[in-house]
Amino acid sequence: MFRSLQRPSTLLFTGVSVRSLTYTTRTRDFRYLLEDVHGMYPHYEAIGVGDSVNKELLDTVMEEAAKVADKVSFPAYMEKEGCTLKDGNVITPAGYKETYRACVEGGWNGLNVPTEYGGQGLPTSVYYITKEMFTTVNYSLASYNTLTCGAIETLLHWGTEELKQQYVPKLVTGEWSGTMCLTEPHCGTDLAQVKTRAEKNADGTYRISGNKIFISAGEHDMTENIIHIVLARLPGSDPTTKGLSLFLVPRNVVGADGTLSKEKNVKCIAIEDKMGIKLSVTCQLSFENSVGYLIGKESEGMKEMFTFMNNARIGVAMQGIAHPEIAFQNALQYARERGSMRALSGAKCPEKPQDPIIYHPNVRHHVLFAKAVAEGGRAIVMEVGKMFDVMQTTQDKALRKKMDDEIAFLTPIAKGCLTEWGLEAAIRCQQVWGGHGYIKGNGMEQIVRDARIATIYEGTTAIQANDLIGRKVLSGKGGAGKDVFAARVAEISERLSGDKVLGGYAKRLGAAIKEWQESIPLLKKASAADADSMGAAAEDFLMYSGYIALSYYWLRMAEVSSKKIAAGEDADGFHQAKVDTCSYVFERVLPRAKTHYEVMLAPASSAKHEAWDLN
Amino acid sequence: MFRSLQRPSTLLFTGVSVRSLTYTTRTRDFRYLLEDVHGMYPHYEAIGVGDSVNKELLDTVMEEAAKVADKVSFPAYMEKEGCTLKDGNVITPAGYKETYRACVEGGWNGLNVPTEYGGQGLPTSVYYITKEMFTTVNYSLASYNTLTCGAIETLLHWGTEELKQQYVPKLVTGEWSGTMCLTEPHCGTDLAQVKTRAEKNADGTYRISGNKIFISAGEHDMTENIIHIVLARLPGSDPTTKGLSLFLVPRNVVGADGTLSKEKNVKCIAIEDKMGIKLSVTCQLSFENSVGYLIGKESEGMKEMFTFMNNARIGVAMQGIAHPEIAFQNALQYARERGSMRALSGAKCPEKPQDPIIYHPNVRHHVLFAKAVAEGGRAIVMEVGKMFDVMQTTQDKALRKKMDDEIAFLTPIAKGCLTEWGLEAAIRCQQVWGGHGYIKGNGMEQIVRDARIATIYEGTTAIQANDLIGRKVLSGKGGAGKDVFAARVAEISERLSGDKVLGGYAKRLGAAIKEWQESIPLLKKASAADADSMGAAAEDFLMYSGYIALSYYWLRMAEVSSKKIAAGEDADGFHQAKVDTCSYVFERVLPRAKTHYEVMLAPASSAKHEAWDLN
Repeated sequence: MFRSLQRPSTLLFTGVSVRSLTYTTRTRDFRYLLEDVHGMYPHYEAIGVGDSVNKELLDTVMEEAAKVADKVSFPAYMEKEGCTLKDGNVITPAGYKETYRACVEGGWNGLNVPTEYGGQGLPTSVYYITKEMFTTVNYSLASYNTLTCGAIETLLHWGTEELKQQYVPKLVTGEWSGTMCLTEPHCGTDLAQVKTRAEKNADGTYRISGNKIFISAGEHDMTENIIHIVLARLPGSDPTTKGLSLFLVPRNVVGADGTLSKEKNVKCIAIEDKMGIKLSVTCQLSFENSVGYLIGKESEGMKEMFTFMNNARIGVAMQGIAHPEIAFQNALQYARERGSMRALSGAKCPEKPQDPIIYHPNVRHHVLFAKAVAEGGRAIVMEVGKMFDVMQTTQDKALRKKMDDEIAFLTPIAKGCLTEWGLEAAIRCQQVWGGHGYIKGNGMEQIVRDARIATIYEGTTAIQANDLIGRKVLSGKGGAGKDVFAARVAEISERLSGDKVLGGYAKRLGAAIKEWQESIPLLKKASAADADSMGAAAEDFLMYSGYIALSYYWLRMAEVSSKKIAAGEDADGFHQAKVDTCSYVFERVLPRAKTHYEVMLAPASSAKHEAWDLN
Repeated sequence: MFRSLQRPSTLLFTGVSVRSLTYTTRTRDFRYLLEDVHGMYPHYEAIGVGDSVNKELLDTVMEEAAKVADKVSFPAYMEKEGCTLKDGNVITPAGYKETYRACVEGGWNGLNVPTEYGGQGLPTSVYYITKEMFTTVNYSLASYNTLTCGAIETLLHWGTEELKQQYVPKLVTGEWSGTMCLTEPHCGTDLAQVKTRAEKNADGTYRISGNKIFISAGEHDMTENIIHIVLARLPGSDPTTKGLSLFLVPRNVVGADGTLSKEKNVKCIAIEDKMGIKLSVTCQLSFENSVGYLIGKESEGMKEMFTFMNNARIGVAMQGIAHPEIAFQNALQYARERGSMRALSGAKCPEKPQDPIIYHPNVRHHVLFAKAVAEGGRAIVMEVGKMFDVMQTTQDKALRKKMDDEIAFLTPIAKGCLTEWGLEAAIRCQQVWGGHGYIKGNGMEQIVRDARIATIYEGTTAIQANDLIGRKVLSGKGGAGKDVFAARVAEISERLSGDKVLGGYAKRLGAAIKEWQESIPLLKKASAADADSMGAAAEDFLMYSGYIALSYYWLRMAEVSSKKIAAGEDADGFHQAKVDTCSYVFERVLPRAKTHYEVMLAPASSAKHEAWDLN
């Protein structure tokens, strides 16, 4: 499997000269998931699109996307100077505009958008594959499209036909881009505090006034127009999140004939200098009686915005695949080339003065961790895509609800855990590079700085954790998803418990899911006795659940791969690598669940306010 | 205890305006360790320096050091532009030179240096206190002195009287600074590969030729001269590390009358642009027949360099106190001021629209983690200082050996674990700030970037881990330190096991140290069966040992503090905060030991080369 990674690095590594990151699209891994693990072709048949969505199409889509990703977007990966703000205009670094255009012109933004709005009408799962590719090669650039696609989905869900016709096609072509405007200076998580006002005009439009901060892609020079999706509050509305409404506010007002207003309807008053993702501009926007159009209904903005947020959360979950993937490829290559000391079990390359550091078990563990979370995350996200496909095509209400419940359960795990693991993988792969990993221009430190935002934006890890434990597990309403998940995990554990190769792991997973299910009443009891317990347990419960989910997907992959090995279909060791990585996950990653289990059930007393800090 | 932290931040926090980091020297915490935990005054009596080294002196030293640290060094904490290289000269940013001078002129570099070389002749433990203060307020600046002090110690240990007389006094005053030159382009960890050559001249001096990289403070404009301590190889010497010799190579050659050569004896050919610690310049140095002086004996350079390295490892361990300390102070203050949502257990500030986020348990856990590792680390390092005091003053060979063994055991734990925890604490405290933590200029992201190097330089975490498990635990030679440590942990566990408040924690610690001791033969057995096992287990064993050590020091602090509380001597809750943090450590940090235990005993098979990556 690693043959694809063996092309030489752009610069040979001699001394401290700067070395370029390398990257190869993992098309084979996508094919493995599509064909062997998730059975996507029978799935496309089942949802009635098998005639057009088949192996031939997917191969073409992946090949074309990989071409653009690898040849156009990846060369712009390394950060240059950031964006600059001048007279209210954001100027992106030279060449970036052209790269952006080359990345959108294939219509990638509209892969899963109905054809009547200019899209390709393909299933969400197909869109996810290309999205992961673009995210991995350049997440700063891809973030513009993530927001555009979130805006598209929100409009398709809640917009009037007029809004859809007017805005979606230009977003699909990437001529215009989108944003989500939630955060204000005094509130990010706590959207009940949103102060931006909306007042209705006589012509049915609205006047929007207020300040929004941390708006990604809020202003830039790469598109003709920017379509802001904005949470604001109507006069006299409920003072909680129930009083929020959602508006479309174009940067340049679009006339009936499609021409754009010269004057900007929304102003950028500042941009942020950040730790990383330098090419993804972060703006402070000022709305001053800006013309806006209601999306959906008044005071239903929060529900509508969740369409955007859930879309964006899966988008950020993919960054939790992207960072470990690129870190993995480059740590592996470095570890093969860099020599230091001898392996403890004896010289591996006696002809050289040192063995490559890949022979040192700790280096190998760092690299394996990144591989495990990137590939495991990829398996999770493809399954979520598959569920979306079903939900979006079935007429069966019960099935749709089942898919919705499972997606709701998996989303906080995907966003919360994958981004935490992505950051850890980036740090561990930087460690493999030693001091060279700390040098700017070598790329490894940029991955860490970029990955750092992923656990913060689109709802911090704590927000994902409280969503999971509160809404999706402990609350009476949201329990269905967790039960389906638990049943699936229990099923494979039982089925494989007698397997020669995987039986031991299957038993461990079975024990883990049993303990997980039994922990829920314990958490409920603790929460009833002390309301702070849920918050005290949330992040540990999230990670606890995440390690079980990761192990489950690895066992599914190992099941497939061990059969291939047994059938003699593993000439190049691709499948052996899968089984070995599964071993690594069960032996060295799943044991973390123990600690999270114990900590989440610890008393919340050390989190009490009175105890310590205000005296 | 937190009253000292309650001064308002420099800028009130409104919107995204940049907020300055704040910092207050934790003098009270040092006093607590000195007087209540480590019994340092009786200790100074016992080692025969009690007449001069008493509370009055320590109070004066801390007050004076805190003045310089807080008022002079801390204002230069936030990074400006980095250093620049021009015509072989490194130019530090404006104002930095003056700050450096103000920080060294108090003679802090020579606190523990004998008076005959211009020092103050105080015990090492006193020096450590001021060193931690200077490191916390500005580790980039303090790193220059860390290297200077390492050079001083190396010369005092191994240098001829002539070298000592000629170089040490100027290093003590900070007029000259020091470096350690080990790493070369092709080797960092693996010093057997050092290629820098040394050849003897007729006059007894040596000619040094070669390239060294990653040399901190290798060239700069803040001192008149720079004294490089250089590992090099004599012709015909053993090709392993046994063939290395140690040399003093001044940047400017010092004449018999003390004048400096105009021409540089060592040239800086490049400086690195790094992820963080921007003000600590990192140089590539070229030695071309540079004049050098042998330190100690030919071919004993590695042993001699270890004096420097061990000194530097404790210096870096202190960065593992510094980063969580400053992260803690600023996360706590932010969490008290920033409002979001309501506490799950009911509104805490009903008069405001939101509760401060410190009332959310997950935020509190992040802040508590930083407090736990900063204060726990401080307790560990002061104990190491105390052991150095004894070792340096006693005539009792057995006692000296005992101290040496314990220091040898604790050094990799201090360097390895404190820096890993320091990075984690910095990341968790950045998370407390949400999106604002990702903005440059707010300081929290700088702490993360700066902290990132600490697990890499002076021996990566893996190097510390292999040192601990290999030399200090599994090898026959180095076992004494571990036994003394285990006995101390067992003693307090037994003594407190019936304690009303702490009995439960004491029992847990007792069980943990028993399991730890019993794990050693298991590790030995695994290592005998498969040589790769030791490397596969090393990092987990390091962290496993570290969590037990951290818990041990917290139990010692809680023992002291619970007595104070019982005696009614806790008017402001300082001691209650210690007991509560001890609870936090036992309930939410020590449980991590479980996972490390299981992982370190897992088979090394998933770390095998053949299994996965070269097919």
